[in-house]
This record gives sequence, structure tokens and C-alpha cells, in this order.
Amino acid sequence: MPSSAIPGFRAVVPAGGSGTRLWPVSRADRPKFLHDLTGSGRTLLQATADRLAPLAGDDGILVVTGERHVAAVREQLPGVGADQVLPEPSPRDSMAAIGLAAAVLERRVGDVVLGSFAADQVVTGRADFERSVHEAVEAARAGYVTTVGIAASRPSTAFGYVHGGSPLDVAGAPSAVHVRGFTEKPDAATAREYLASGEYRWNAGIFVASTSVLLGHLADQRPALHDGLRRVADAWDTPERARVLAEVWPGLEKIAIDHAVAEPVAAAGGVAMVPGTFGWDDVGDFNSLAALLPADDDSGSKVLGDGADVVRVQSAGSVVVPASGRTVTLLGIDDVVVVDTPDALLVTTRARAQQVRRMVDAVRDHGREDLL
Amino acid sequence: MPSSAIPGFRAVVPAGGSGTRLWPVSRADRPKFLHDLTGSGRTLLQATADRLAPLAGDDGILVVTGERHVAAVREQLPGVGADQVLPEPSPRDSMAAIGLAAAVLERRVGDVVLGSFAADQVVTGRADFERSVHEAVEAARAGYVTTVGIAASRPSTAFGYVHGGSPLDVAGAPSAVHVRGFTEKPDAATAREYLASGEYRWNAGIFVASTSVLLGHLADQRPALHDGLRRVADAWDTPERARVLAEVWPGLEKIAIDHAVAEPVAAAGGVAMVPGTFGWDDVGDFNSLAALLPADDDSGSKVLGDGADVVRVQSAGSVVVPASGRTVTLLGIDDVVVVDTPDALLVTTRARAQQVRRMVDAVRDHGREDLL
Repeated sequence: MPSSAIPGFRAVVPAGGSGTRLWPVSRADRPKFLHDLTGSGRTLLQATADRLAPLAGDDGILVVTGERHVAAVREQLPGVGADQVLPEPSPRDSMAAIGLAAAVLERRVGDVVLGSFAADQVVTGRADFERSVHEAVEAARAGYVTTVGIAASRPSTAFGYVHGGSPLDVAGAPSAVHVRGFTEKPDAATAREYLASGEYRWNAGIFVASTSVLLGHLADQRPALHDGLRRVADAWDTPERARVLAEVWPGLEKIAIDHAVAEPVAAAGGVAMVPGTFGWDDVGDFNSLAALLPADDDSGSKVLGDGADVVRVQSAGSVVVPASGRTVTLLGIDDVVVVDTPDALLVTTRARAQQVRRMVDAVRDHGREDLL
Repeated sequence: MPSSAIPGFRAVVPAGGSGTRLWPVSRADRPKFLHDLTGSGRTLLQATADRLAPLAGDDGILVVTGERHVAAVREQLPGVGADQVLPEPSPRDSMAAIGLAAAVLERRVGDVVLGSFAADQVVTGRADFERSVHEAVEAARAGYVTTVGIAASRPSTAFGYVHGGSPLDVAGAPSAVHVRGFTEKPDAATAREYLASGEYRWNAGIFVASTSVLLGHLADQRPALHDGLRRVADAWDTPERARVLAEVWPGLEKIAIDHAVAEPVAAAGGVAMVPGTFGWDDVGDFNSLAALLPADDDSGSKVLGDGADVVRVQSAGSVVVPASGRTVTLLGIDDVVVVDTPDALLVTTRARAQQVRRMVDAVRDHGREDLL
């Protein structure tokens, strides 16, 4: 399927999040999105930009990231211009990041459709992804805040869900449906019910809307945040940017776009969903990372890195990240996770991979902030 | 208990063995005896020499070691003179090493009593150790090949056993008994029977005998080996050493002193045992090493190295050797063994510690001889 940029479409990439469950690969100075976690040769950020460039054009991508990551982002994305990277002085959650991008875009190019795609997700099936975005853009042009719902392949308790409803009936968006609501991460029983009903899909945090619609909802729902972001955007491309940021940014409400806009607007019937048919994962921890890697032997062992750096004897189902150049050897131990970096080593199990954040806390308590 | 050198006594320290079950700490170029495995600040070799110097005097210690280890041995034992280190061109097992020392000693100082103590064992209870050696020397002066039997604290299948008999009745050796025989490493059921009988003690490989008695038995039991060693010893302190070694050494029989002398002589009534009351361990693997280390937390976790280099979260009973300067972190994993060196990492379990040799084979098969 040939792809071409969608007229009047801009892609916003919030590149934030610390990825603490992927420590010690993911660090404060070099978080998850700056790493190649699939062995593809491209970092998650690069793969995200690669995926969006055909839809928005190279100059149609805006990356919103922390000031400390601007240099790394620009180095990884040489095709993205300096003014396409918006530095945040401090993290203010997704509504501020996406709202800032919307307000800056509106000042620069007028009312356009923006799609927001997190920098740290993995997507497979390029053609299906593009088809979904095309549909979402049409639904957005019809005035909807539009999300893409991912087919829930298992009753995951790690994701939020989108509850779909009746067909949207918008030209160019044949599969889109109305959204009845969003849910937080459910417990296991609820997740199973969701799956059985066939009405729920995973919320991948993809939101597509015209800037005027999005900022209009924001003005209704969170007027102070809206006004602050407008002030910052007005000053953005002027010598006043730093002064206004210093004045306004620290006081902005920290809130996710889901809570600020998607949920209340869905309740009022203003949100649509396009059912995505592509593969998607948020690579939350070393166990979910393992699912994205090819097996390195007959027992399902996975290696992120050079398989020649790992020697196993009677060890099945391990996940090894040999990232220090040393040889990692496993003897008679199953389902172990070994992450080997030049200054820190993590040994845990696949079953405990979701709890790596606790190790990050323990390392901080141990007085080794330098390792985080 | 004050200690003083025993007149006419010499200590022989065979410093060999690769310690493959302690890889990757123990390496071909730097085997087990060259490492501090107890956190005492002294290597096993140094601790052995420290223990023997009061009994034999600094100049009464002979170390028999491989040519490639001579420099390291001399560096670790500055008090031991150059002619007290006997280099072996290749490993020929313990009979050749001890027999060479005996023959060299006999040429240098005449008939003396020698005691052989491996360089890679750990002894606690200095006064008890010295008392045992004093008794063993008296039994040796009475013409016996004398061993020290260690109180078997558990039905170990990792050690050979000495079967004791009636009292020896030699002045100065009140606790010595006749030895009925030696056994190979037993199976678990046999080991339990040994323990229950009260007649068996662990064979620590300590042998004390006068050089004339030892070499006489060797001449009877293994005449070719005896003659070869005599030829080498005759040439040792002459310009002919290298030539004779090159001619004779490669053809010497590889056999342990247990099989060559101790077993056949015991059958003929010529072996005695002094029951040792000191603590002894051969530090065969990372699990037995753990038993020698103080606990680093309430759950029996052990660290050989700096405890500040290890962070544990819900991890009990681990053994960690942080030998690369990096921080080792364990999350939700019990009884794991993590050995962290600058070029190789081993992750296994305490239960599998005895099988580390298999990893050494696997690393060799992997083409990484450089890591062994």
C-alpha cells in the first residue's frame, strides 16, 4: 500500500516517561524511548518517527520532550528541525504536552488535525497502522476527538480500555464507532469480562483531533490549563519564550489527556474510536519486551543484543540484555531476567519484571542516585 | 597457645588445581588458590603459608606449582625464597608434586619430616591445627605415613573418607589411630552410614611422613615414578635441571598420593590418622564458599566483596561476588548465585553450584577459551 502525507495533518510525539520498569537499560538521562528495545536497529523514538513521517511528512512531526533530552532527540532524529522539538522545563503529564503542541501548531499553521503518538510504543503492521490513522483523521475532521483502540489479545491488567459503541457513520472512516467511555486499568476479573463482551479495546493513548476542537474542549474542561498553554504558545516563537515559560509552566496542572478531555468529552458523545488492526505493545517491562524478540534457542530464551554474548546451560525461558560487552552465562536457572550494563546489573525473574520500579526505589535509598 | 617451629619439619604446599567450579573467579591464569575467597584480606595460598610458617619457619616452606603461576606465588609470598618455589613444567597430580618436594628436600637437608597441605583449603582454629600437626609429626617420626582426619559434620558426598581403627600408641601422638583404609567420594547412603558409625573422618589430603619413609613406599609401589623423581631432584639445584626435566617430567605417571601410597600402605598397616579438631573446608564451589562468609542480611544472603555493591529487594539466601566494581541488584529471586567479573558474569543457583564445571565446558565450546 503506497503511503503519502495526509494534507493538513501533523503528528505530535510526546517523548516522556521514565520507563523505570526497564531499569537499568532505561535511565533518567536516557529513558526508554531513546533505546532500541526490539533489536531492530532503531530506537523506539526513531521507529515512531519512521512510522509517522509518511503520514505527516518529516516537517510535520513535533516532538515534545524534557529539556535534558532535547540533544539526544535531535541526534536521533536528524530529519526533524530544531523548531520541531518543543522542550518542556519539567514534566506536566500528557495534557500539557499535547495541548502545548496544539496551541503552538495553531499559531504557526492555523487549524490542523493533530495526532498524538507516544514515543515509547512498538507497532507492527505499517499498512494497517496507516489505514487506522487515515480513518481517525477523517473522524477528527468531522469534529470528534478520535482514538485508536487496539484489539485486546489477552485480559491485560496493565492497560486501560476503550468501550466502543454504535457506528460513527462518517465518510472516510467506515470502521469508526462512538466511544461510550474509558476505563482505568481493570482487575483481572473485569479484564476478562471486557474481553468476553467484545466491546472493549486497549487504550493505546493515541488521540487524533483538530487543534480547534481539542483546545476548545480543553478551554471548557480545564480553562486555567488552556489559558496557560495559550500564553506559552503565544510566546513560543518569540524572545519572550523563556520568560513566559518560567512564569507559567510550573503552575500548570499535571493531568493526563484521558482525564482532562477524553473521558468528559466521551460522556458527552464527542469521542470516536477507530479499531486498530495493527500489532501494538507498550514494552512496559522486560517480560513484555521478551514477547517482541525472536527466540534465541529452542526453549524460548530471548536476547536483546548479541546472542553470541550469552552462554546457557540447562537454562530455559530467560531474558538477557547483554549491554556491557561482557559474556553472560546462565547455568541451571529458568525464566531469569539478566540485564547487564556497564555500571549496574539487574537479576530478577520474568514473573517479577513488573516490579522493577521497586528496585529503582531501593537503589535510590541505597544512595546510588547516579545509577538511576 | 604459643607456637614455635618444629625441629626437622618442612611444609610442602602443592599449589595446583584449576578450581573450575569457582569460575569465573578462578581462571586458568589465576586459579582458586591465588584468590581471597573468605574476605579475610589474604588469599588461600597466603593463609596456608601464614598457618604453616609458625610450624616450619618461613624458610621451611616449599611451594610446588605450575610454571605459569611462579611469578604470582612469589608476589603473594614475599617471605618465601626463590629456591623454595618448585615449578612443575606440567601438572602430574599430587604424587609427583609431593614426591618431587620430598626428593629435593632429602638432597638439600637430608631425612626430614614433611607435611603436605594443599594451597586451596580453609582452616579455622589455629591452635587446634598446630596441635594436630605436632601429633602427626610424632607419628611420622615413628615411621607412619600420617594423615589428619577432619570431623565429618555432614554426610558429604564431595569428600573422600578415612576409616580409623585402634589407637596408635606413639609418644607425643596421644590421639593418633591406625588407618584401616581410605574411601573415594561415597554416595549419599554410604556417607550417612559412615557418619553413623563414628569411625570415618573426611580426608583433607594432609599427609605427614619422613622423606625416607615416603620415598621408600614410593619406590616399592611405583618404582618408575620414584626413579624419575629422584633423577629430577638430583639435577634440581644444578645447571642440568631444565634438561633433565624436559627429558623425564613428561613421562611421569599422573597419580594422586592417595592411590600411589596412602591406600596400599594403609592396607599393610603403615598409615596413621590424627583426628583434627579444627574447622576445615575445601571451598569447592560457590555454595561451600557461602558457608564461610558472614551473613549480609537477615535472610542469609552472602557477599564475597563489598556489601555496598549489592542491593537486594525480596531476595533471600543469595551468594553474590561483586568483583567488577559494578552494582549488582537482585529483585524477587532466592538462592541465586551471581558472580560478576570484568569480562564474564555467571548466574546460577546454590543448588547447581557444584555443576559450574559444565559452564566452563560450554564457554570453551562457545569458542571463548580467553574467558577460562
